[in-house]
Amino acid sequence: MKYSSKLITDAVAEFAKLPGIGEKTALRLVLHLLKQDTEKVNGFGEAVTRMRSEVKFCNTCHNVSDNETCEICANIHRDHSTVCLVESIRDVIAIENTQVYRGVYHVLGGVISPIDGIGPEKLSIDSLLQRVAHGEIKEIIMALSPTIEGDTTIFYISKKLKDTGVNITTIARGISFGGELEYTDEMTLARSIATRLPYENVLVKASN
Amino acid sequence: MKYSSKLITDAVAEFAKLPGIGEKTALRLVLHLLKQDTEKVNGFGEAVTRMRSEVKFCNTCHNVSDNETCEICANIHRDHSTVCLVESIRDVIAIENTQVYRGVYHVLGGVISPIDGIGPEKLSIDSLLQRVAHGEIKEIIMALSPTIEGDTTIFYISKKLKDTGVNITTIARGISFGGELEYTDEMTLARSIATRLPYENVLVKASN
Repeated sequence: MKYSSKLITDAVAEFAKLPGIGEKTALRLVLHLLKQDTEKVNGFGEAVTRMRSEVKFCNTCHNVSDNETCEICANIHRDHSTVCLVESIRDVIAIENTQVYRGVYHVLGGVISPIDGIGPEKLSIDSLLQRVAHGEIKEIIMALSPTIEGDTTIFYISKKLKDTGVNITTIARGISFGGELEYTDEMTLARSIATRLPYENVLVKASN
Repeated sequence: MKYSSKLITDAVAEFAKLPGIGEKTALRLVLHLLKQDTEKVNGFGEAVTRMRSEVKFCNTCHNVSDNETCEICANIHRDHSTVCLVESIRDVIAIENTQVYRGVYHVLGGVISPIDGIGPEKLSIDSLLQRVAHGEIKEIIMALSPTIEGDTTIFYISKKLKDTGVNITTIARGISFGGELEYTDEMTLARSIATRLPYENVLVKASN
């Protein structure tokens, strides 16, 4: 497409590079910004540029942070003996939004996936082992996606942690709340029967 | 939602202000940018900021432009005696992409809509009359949307142009190519029967 202005063409091209945004949507966004005040648009550009250039990653858990230590790791009211191991920052946000977890996190930065060339050395596994070596951690909750890559990663890390005495748990896998039994895939259904719990356990855990 | 970083929160908030982008999509875009090189993200921010602060509007037709006169108005190979009157820059882009129109444009900046507080004085009607007064223009094609506001605007402008001797036409209204007759709304169908054309006309116009 031609836009009779190189400035517009450039801005549309930049927006169209974003995931899920095609050229038509990009044009719509650019024409929307064109109608806004110059200061507002400058604010937009600045927020994006600053975010990328100034954001830091927590030295302890690798979560995004404005400082060397993130808000969660710096919070003394949280339980620093429980670490929730997640794949990405996105998962930290998802778990934080449930507002029930009071421990801390460790962001792996991915899962082991030989097909994508991601080996254990590319993930922040060493820094997890260092954190464990400090002795404060009692439990690591494996909150990785239940995929082959996720399970491989859990298996690899749990072997590494074998002799440390840390209690390893995984988040519960089963049928979603509000999910229909008949539409649940066979694998989930089969595993949820195999790993069934006494009813009292569910009641106790839900009330915790 | 909380993101444990004010920089991320700000960037997400800025993206979420854009039309059609909610907070979840905004977060997805921000996390995507976070994975890109700093220079690339700076390029994005700069393209957007520059676009808003440096883009100009053509003195003649009010289309977006990098200079005082847009590429279309500056092009001597185009037919400057035919002006296509459109509501917005978006319409110019849509018509340009058909690659059949060789005349020039005039961007109104909206249509008359009392309910939205848009009167004729807010549109670039005066500058259109000035262009007509120069005497070069022979035909004005009204390419406004066939809505009540569009039709009101066409009626208003055509009255203003009554004694100038300019030939006023409107783009053809009828059933879209590839459209199914049975799913066409009654108004369009009724009007397309009332304004039917001799078959030869269609053939001649299509081959032009």
